[in-house]
Amino acid sequence: MPSSLTLHVVTPVTGMSLPPAAVPTAALGPGVSVTCSAIGDGPASIECELDQALAVPGTLAAVSAAARAGADAVVINCMGDPGLDAARELTSIPVLGTAQTSMHVAAMLGHRFSILTVVDQLIHVDEAKAASYGLGGRLASVRSVGIPVLDLGADTGHLLAALTEQGLHAVRDDGAHVLVLGCTGMLGLAADLATALVHQGVSDVPVVDPLPVTLHVAAALARSGVSHSKRTYPCPPAKPRSGYEAVLGASSARVA
Amino acid sequence: MPSSLTLHVVTPVTGMSLPPAAVPTAALGPGVSVTCSAIGDGPASIECELDQALAVPGTLAAVSAAARAGADAVVINCMGDPGLDAARELTSIPVLGTAQTSMHVAAMLGHRFSILTVVDQLIHVDEAKAASYGLGGRLASVRSVGIPVLDLGADTGHLLAALTEQGLHAVRDDGAHVLVLGCTGMLGLAADLATALVHQGVSDVPVVDPLPVTLHVAAALARSGVSHSKRTYPCPPAKPRSGYEAVLGASSARVA
Amino acid sequence: MPSSLTLHVVTPVTGMSLPPAAVPTAALGPGVSVTCSAIGDGPASIECELDQALAVPGTLAAVSAAARAGADAVVINCMGDPGLDAARELTSIPVLGTAQTSMHVAAMLGHRFSILTVVDQLIHVDEAKAASYGLGGRLASVRSVGIPVLDLGADTGHLLAALTEQGLHAVRDDGAHVLVLGCTGMLGLAADLATALVHQGVSDVPVVDPLPVTLHVAAALARSGVSHSKRTYPCPPAKPRSGYEAVLGASSARVA
Amino acid sequence: MPSSLTLHVVTPVTGMSLPPAAVPTAALGPGVSVTCSAIGDGPASIECELDQALAVPGTLAAVSAAARAGADAVVINCMGDPGLDAARELTSIPVLGTAQTSMHVAAMLGHRFSILTVVDQLIHVDEAKAASYGLGGRLASVRSVGIPVLDLGADTGHLLAALTEQGLHAVRDDGAHVLVLGCTGMLGLAADLATALVHQGVSDVPVVDPLPVTLHVAAALARSGVSHSKRTYPCPPAKPRSGYEAVLGASSARVA
Amino acid sequence: MPSSLTLHVVTPVTGMSLPPAAVPTAALGPGVSVTCSAIGDGPASIECELDQALAVPGTLAAVSAAARAGADAVVINCMGDPGLDAARELTSIPVLGTAQTSMHVAAMLGHRFSILTVVDQLIHVDEAKAASYGLGGRLASVRSVGIPVLDLGADTGHLLAALTEQGLHAVRDDGAHVLVLGCTGMLGLAADLATALVHQGVSDVPVVDPLPVTLHVAAALARSGVSHSKRTYPCPPAKPRSGYEAVLGASSARVA
Amino acid sequence: MPSSLTLHVVTPVTGMSLPPAAVPTAALGPGVSVTCSAIGDGPASIECELDQALAVPGTLAAVSAAARAGADAVVINCMGDPGLDAARELTSIPVLGTAQTSMHVAAMLGHRFSILTVVDQLIHVDEAKAASYGLGGRLASVRSVGIPVLDLGADTGHLLAALTEQGLHAVRDDGAHVLVLGCTGMLGLAADLATALVHQGVSDVPVVDPLPVTLHVAAALARSGVSHSKRTYPCPPAKPRSGYEAVLGASSARVA
Repeated sequence: MPSSLTLHVVTPVTGMSLPPAAVPTAALGPGVSVTCSAIGDGPASIECELDQALAVPGTLAAVSAAARAGADAVVINCMGDPGLDAARELTSIPVLGTAQTSMHVAAMLGHRFSILTVVDQLIHVDEAKAASYGLGGRLASVRSVGIPVLDLGADTGHLLAALTEQGLHAVRDDGAHVLVLGCTGMLGLAADLATALVHQGVSDVPVVDPLPVTLHVAAALARSGVSHSKRTYPCPPAKPRSGYEAVLGASSARVA
Repeated sequence: MPSSLTLHVVTPVTGMSLPPAAVPTAALGPGVSVTCSAIGDGPASIECELDQALAVPGTLAAVSAAARAGADAVVINCMGDPGLDAARELTSIPVLGTAQTSMHVAAMLGHRFSILTVVDQLIHVDEAKAASYGLGGRLASVRSVGIPVLDLGADTGHLLAALTEQGLHAVRDDGAHVLVLGCTGMLGLAADLATALVHQGVSDVPVVDPLPVTLHVAAALARSGVSHSKRTYPCPPAKPRSGYEAVLGASSARVA
Repeated sequence: MPSSLTLHVVTPVTGMSLPPAAVPTAALGPGVSVTCSAIGDGPASIECELDQALAVPGTLAAVSAAARAGADAVVINCMGDPGLDAARELTSIPVLGTAQTSMHVAAMLGHRFSILTVVDQLIHVDEAKAASYGLGGRLASVRSVGIPVLDLGADTGHLLAALTEQGLHAVRDDGAHVLVLGCTGMLGLAADLATALVHQGVSDVPVVDPLPVTLHVAAALARSGVSHSKRTYPCPPAKPRSGYEAVLGASSARVA
Repeated sequence: MPSSLTLHVVTPVTGMSLPPAAVPTAALGPGVSVTCSAIGDGPASIECELDQALAVPGTLAAVSAAARAGADAVVINCMGDPGLDAARELTSIPVLGTAQTSMHVAAMLGHRFSILTVVDQLIHVDEAKAASYGLGGRLASVRSVGIPVLDLGADTGHLLAALTEQGLHAVRDDGAHVLVLGCTGMLGLAADLATALVHQGVSDVPVVDPLPVTLHVAAALARSGVSHSKRTYPCPPAKPRSGYEAVLGASSARVA
Repeated sequence: MPSSLTLHVVTPVTGMSLPPAAVPTAALGPGVSVTCSAIGDGPASIECELDQALAVPGTLAAVSAAARAGADAVVINCMGDPGLDAARELTSIPVLGTAQTSMHVAAMLGHRFSILTVVDQLIHVDEAKAASYGLGGRLASVRSVGIPVLDLGADTGHLLAALTEQGLHAVRDDGAHVLVLGCTGMLGLAADLATALVHQGVSDVPVVDPLPVTLHVAAALARSGVSHSKRTYPCPPAKPRSGYEAVLGASSARVA
Repeated sequence: MPSSLTLHVVTPVTGMSLPPAAVPTAALGPGVSVTCSAIGDGPASIECELDQALAVPGTLAAVSAAARAGADAVVINCMGDPGLDAARELTSIPVLGTAQTSMHVAAMLGHRFSILTVVDQLIHVDEAKAASYGLGGRLASVRSVGIPVLDLGADTGHLLAALTEQGLHAVRDDGAHVLVLGCTGMLGLAADLATALVHQGVSDVPVVDPLPVTLHVAAALARSGVSHSKRTYPCPPAKPRSGYEAVLGASSARVA
């Protein structure tokens, strides 16, 4: 069991590596450090199935690189969990997705949870994602603030107001008992949203910020020596995989 | 309604474009022609999540090219349906996956169906796939013949014997009423398997060969003028998607 | 594989055999012909469980007759699919129901579908039908236009307006991504409804017209040589079945 | 609340009206009398979907007649529950099916239940029936004794041995905690089967005999003044239903 | 089979033993008598998980005492069914909960049912309860009248008005076809609620009063000689259980 | 965010407080301390529903005491999670159950998980528990080693052999990809079991030890400032709850 841990955060978009200062490392407790990367080729943000698909090769390359560099666990920092299954095939250190992890945590915390996503086009995508994790029955709703990812930072007040409005609908109309921020670009807004909800008379609903909670669970797994099942995610068989040498991190495009 | 139809088949692996002669075009009825392609970069076969992920960019490029070339519908010829969702975002002509289509057809034909796949490592992948299409409750089992994709053609007699053995287990032990060939590399073996089952006393179980049945449904959709919902698969928003110009089929990596 | 196909359409009500001219035969491609029949005894329309039950004996007789007359496949032209299971026991040629087929096709086309039925009393019947096909999780809603079957033809403008109103509710309030006409008496209105939806700002939702799409799938099955499982629908054992000689199509009321 | 009750039992086959002496009327408590009928036209036994379908018109006629004759409740005495939904539309007195009632009672008594049916061909039919009642998740298995209905009475010792063998498999291999006799032709064998199971070391599994338990529940509903919902089973609208005057119990084939 | 039956009703709260006169014994038919008890230690009413948990030891003591006193069946008279599973381990006579029984009866009577409970805090508790009985798919909604249990008797007119208002919402907005009174403190109001609904135009929805219907089913089980499965609810193994001698009804806190 | 954390472990049986030395505190990382308690009145071990029910009052008292003593989070150390819901109503610091937490973690790690419990009588109890957490679809099986809790320590070699045998069946026969130790009395055996499985040729299945992983998640929640939803677990309303002063931790048996 390592006395110190290194967690790596891959943000699966181009040009938007999370500044390490933005990561709430101190809250992870003593002995934990966090490194960050973005991807080379791929979409500038993730708002549809095409974006998710094109983010995967770069994400796999980043996960492989982090594992080779000695990370104790890796977090894919996007609520689409792009490449999560394939990344787990490539390594035996824990690889976590912010969507899978935060949905399971939300399911542990209360009766049903709602996800507050960015745009309407992702509502059914998130519904399908929750169902694929076996948590469809615990999902109260997915609601959107109607703000594209790349505009999230333009007006935080507007974003917070929209999150509050949709959060109130989720609680009052859809029966949500827990809220999950639906885009990792909303990092850091959980406390503000909770406060805003209290001002509107809703003081009993926790808000889950996906990246911090996933980092905590990643640290927990790394410390407890438990990782994903290699029976579910076996090492890929050797074969030609032309064009993806970077992903596989070797001179030949093969995985032993 | 066109009096003649062109269907395009993308086999999402490198170096294995289906020879057009292998496609049972005549059975599609008068007026239907079929074109075929493989992908440039990607895996030589698909046997894990990594292979599926790396097959996607090439598949999307092939679907886009086929649509631009005037195809009336496109079939992705692999039981992993790689890139199906994203491909549907890229075009409005019907794009069908052999897995989704053959599973729905199998569900229409009888109480429960089993899938006969290539290797054990794909069993849970196919279970998850069926569940993602909402058909988990109709799946009797997934069984594997234990033969990697690239070895399927080495000994057809051995393959047929293994399919028969697993098919009998599926029917007698798992309650399957319909069988689905679990790899499009098994193309053309449905009738032989059905005959072999009859010799073993099982004469009441249809065998679905995914590619032909999917081509028939593709022709049906193209002829009836119905395609996938653009509300589920909207046109991707314009944004930089560096490194994927070929996929998007334009000088800039943007989709309007 | 036959170069020409004959599909038979049974409309399971009295006095309402579909005029062959109403069937969009041309769209089925070259070499397909369609024959039609209604039933002798039974209800004038189908709007409740009693109607469905009383339509069955006549439907079974019509299916048997069509099979004896050499049809390549039979379609039961009613969104209740009356007699579908029993009819499949009586024959080995494909027998399709418009409800089962159009619901599976709708499920292939998008995230969730809604059915627009005739009267409120059929809403829960259609919900149960979708669930019985294993598609309950893909159903967004069933909505009714409040017009009895026998009045559907009285005022097509009113019917179309009601379909548009309920279709918009289904899309905007219930999350439908695909619409299915819920009564085969609405034959031919899919394109008009789609156009009306576009005029209301909804241009991304396909509308499935059950009879045409079912005929296409029936042709696809007949051409690909695949039919329903006789393990699910075995030939009925011989025994007295008094009063139903016509159904069984033989001098004695027995089935070998 | 009536001080005395009349329950009517319709056995939905020809020539096999239950002898009233076979009904365990005394166990129903003081003040309950039972009347019995079979159907005119229809199958001699029910072993497939065709039999079920052809049993419906006669069953509906019998239910209507019993209601007109003043019965307080009606039981359809067959584990296929033929005509249950339509019969409930025809009357407002409680109409119960032995399958629906005994499955719900079995679900109340323990973790999972198994059904012991007559022939293999009914296994999937019973699975679908349990699912249609929303109890699929409570069903451990359906097993068959391999004896056609009309042969059940030929050798009771053989029948009991077969029930014991399959019951033991259901308990030990399938996890059944409750057993349900799967054919009302097995009437009266519950205690004998329970005793035989005890002799084999299984003393903790109740056996539900469908007809008696359904009669008890029918009496309970009649006494408590609760019947089925007429919102689910509304009175059928008036319309021509040619050939089914007997079913509808009136000079014209209409229902107001 | 006993010619007379004694049913015992445990109301699992302190100081609120049901007056025997309040029990509709006459409707149970000739030969049935009912005895009643409350519990010693525990909550004054049940409105949260804490109340349910603290009601259990007293309820178990009361069930044990009733069984020792010769009751033929016991009903736990609370819609939380506190202690139902453990009580069934303690005895082999039928023990029924009003929630489990009335939900199964409601599921037999119509398409979907709604529960009208006392306070908002119980809505998700009742949803989870229905799901635990395998009936989540049959539940249309749980709605609350916003009146704490101990205030139910203060103003029956107000209670009835609130039940009517929520019942109408359940029927019109949630698709309920059957209503279940959600608290046994509403005993006797089913007929009044049904009448009030008729005055509002809803005449086709039965209202289930949990205690009477559960007493009827308890009598049915006792008379038919069927009880819960001792495989699901085995006799607890002997071991020290300090502090709970009263529950176990013996000088030592052990159960053989 | 506290720089140091105190986690409290309640073992909900009498006389078996976990020795703090047995808790793998060091692995929790710097700054975490663990305190332990057992319960006063209650069962000596938990092997049936009666045991679970009787463990609850003592568990609630222990949770309340730990919260008053300043614990940052509490873990209920039993795979029945006795009193989890009610305990969460009593406090706002995180309260975790080893069953709920380890099942969610197992679901995150692989396709399906199996639980290895102590005695056959708990198999269906654990199945129901998994279903109640919404994870029934992720459960491959529950298997038992046939050793009562109080005998677990008698022969560790025998226990390990039994765990290995059942674990192999779970992996090979039931399709488990992850194993969960089914009793917290098996604490510390995960690594030994994993090693034994490797010796049998199964090297790809992680084994989850419930207490350590739950402590890790408890620390994660406490550090991230997220706790259970007070909308799901509201503070109990004030009312008399006679006999349970200790549970409620106040001079009067009321909770404000």
